[in-house]
Amino acid sequence: MSYARQMLDTYSQPLAVDAGLFAAAIEAASDCAQACNADTDADLSEQNLAEMVMCIRLCLDCTDICTATAAVLSRPAERDLSATRQLVGACVAICQSCGDECERHAHMPHCRVCAEACRRCERACRDLLESWK
Amino acid sequence: MSYARQMLDTYSQPLAVDAGLFAAAIEAASDCAQACNADTDADLSEQNLAEMVMCIRLCLDCTDICTATAAVLSRPAERDLSATRQLVGACVAICQSCGDECERHAHMPHCRVCAEACRRCERACRDLLESWK
Amino acid sequence: MSYARQMLDTYSQPLAVDAGLFAAAIEAASDCAQACNADTDADLSEQNLAEMVMCIRLCLDCTDICTATAAVLSRPAERDLSATRQLVGACVAICQSCGDECERHAHMPHCRVCAEACRRCERACRDLLESWK
Amino acid sequence: MSYARQMLDTYSQPLAVDAGLFAAAIEAASDCAQACNADTDADLSEQNLAEMVMCIRLCLDCTDICTATAAVLSRPAERDLSATRQLVGACVAICQSCGDECERHAHMPHCRVCAEACRRCERACRDLLESWK
Repeated sequence: MSYARQMLDTYSQPLAVDAGLFAAAIEAASDCAQACNADTDADLSEQNLAEMVMCIRLCLDCTDICTATAAVLSRPAERDLSATRQLVGACVAICQSCGDECERHAHMPHCRVCAEACRRCERACRDLLESWK
Repeated sequence: MSYARQMLDTYSQPLAVDAGLFAAAIEAASDCAQACNADTDADLSEQNLAEMVMCIRLCLDCTDICTATAAVLSRPAERDLSATRQLVGACVAICQSCGDECERHAHMPHCRVCAEACRRCERACRDLLESWK
Repeated sequence: MSYARQMLDTYSQPLAVDAGLFAAAIEAASDCAQACNADTDADLSEQNLAEMVMCIRLCLDCTDICTATAAVLSRPAERDLSATRQLVGACVAICQSCGDECERHAHMPHCRVCAEACRRCERACRDLLESWK
Repeated sequence: MSYARQMLDTYSQPLAVDAGLFAAAIEAASDCAQACNADTDADLSEQNLAEMVMCIRLCLDCTDICTATAAVLSRPAERDLSATRQLVGACVAICQSCGDECERHAHMPHCRVCAEACRRCERACRDLLESWK
């Protein structure tokens, strides 16, 4: 079991959201930040660099937004739900854009893996937002 | 002149937004992340810790969201405006909440300074969002 | 297989270090950042807050240093090995201190899980440093 | 006066280091993270992308390490000096490498500004390390 889930299971206060959905979003955002960071580096090693510029830009944004999302969701105590919801919304949006762009380069194995990480994070964050409605 | 403004002035491509507003938001978010981080530490040194818990929680979120906002805005090339707008919206929301909470402890000098940093960032991010409409 | 390992396996250039050791350090640092972030929040919900202050401070540092370590290691291209080695060294040091402090509170389930995450990251980063010698 | 300095001046406990040196390092690391982030984006807009790859890689590392350094130094309470010192050492090393590389492109205004930010951060972090001896 992931640390994210283990930590939620030790949490002494009631969660506003199902622990499984919560843990899935934390793990997906953390993994997506990692994959996008790695994809930035792999893109920079490609021959046709000019074609990779948009992919690099989106990966950089996706890394920053997923890192912040994973960090904020890792502290589940309730405080400002409006800010958190907008942050998770930003995460859905950037994972969609970055996933679309990476899919356009799916013949490159690193972009195919990154696209998968983005799709999984987009879905997990959407599910979390749905359950908060 | 700040590095943020200098970097924007060297930027070779047209900006979607006035450089002054852009630089103000970057600097305010960067400064607010720093002030909230410092306030977390100062709160932890207070005697009446139980009263500071909400302030610490909000400062932690404000640090993470302002850090991501400053990072994303520092790369001004256009790519996914929807994600950026939601991120800046999250920044406005958390700066408002964190600023309100810090103002409740304004008799503590560290919370008074932090409240000021939050208010400035909230305003600068609102101004940026307005100009993007 | 983790994304970290998958991304390394798609990497087009030779790695300076065994991919398994590299992936283990990336995953351990990323997981440790998450666990320390969650532990900060759990510590703030404890009754005996005054006893948790050092644990919170160390968790905050461990989160920041592990986040940077995971980010830098995720981009495996060679560039400045001296900076990376000192960063990984800082990660070993803070994981040791934070793990020691969390172990002192191992009767609290959240600190027990966090101690485990710190120990695993300390080991993985040590192994990486050894293999770079 | 910067928020970093104001926050240090409100700090209730004695600092291990002169507040001016401390504030200078925090501000320089925070500014350098911003400048390197902006330079990454500007590099990606250059025609001769292949020549900018090393600069981009170093700017990405410098951003991550300076961000962590600014965050950790912003919480001045004493806890694990060994980890902090190694982190600041990593910051000196990456600022030196990134500043050297940016200076090689000093005919590009964005790299000239970024080199200046790196030099200032390198100096401020060296001064801080000296005063900790």
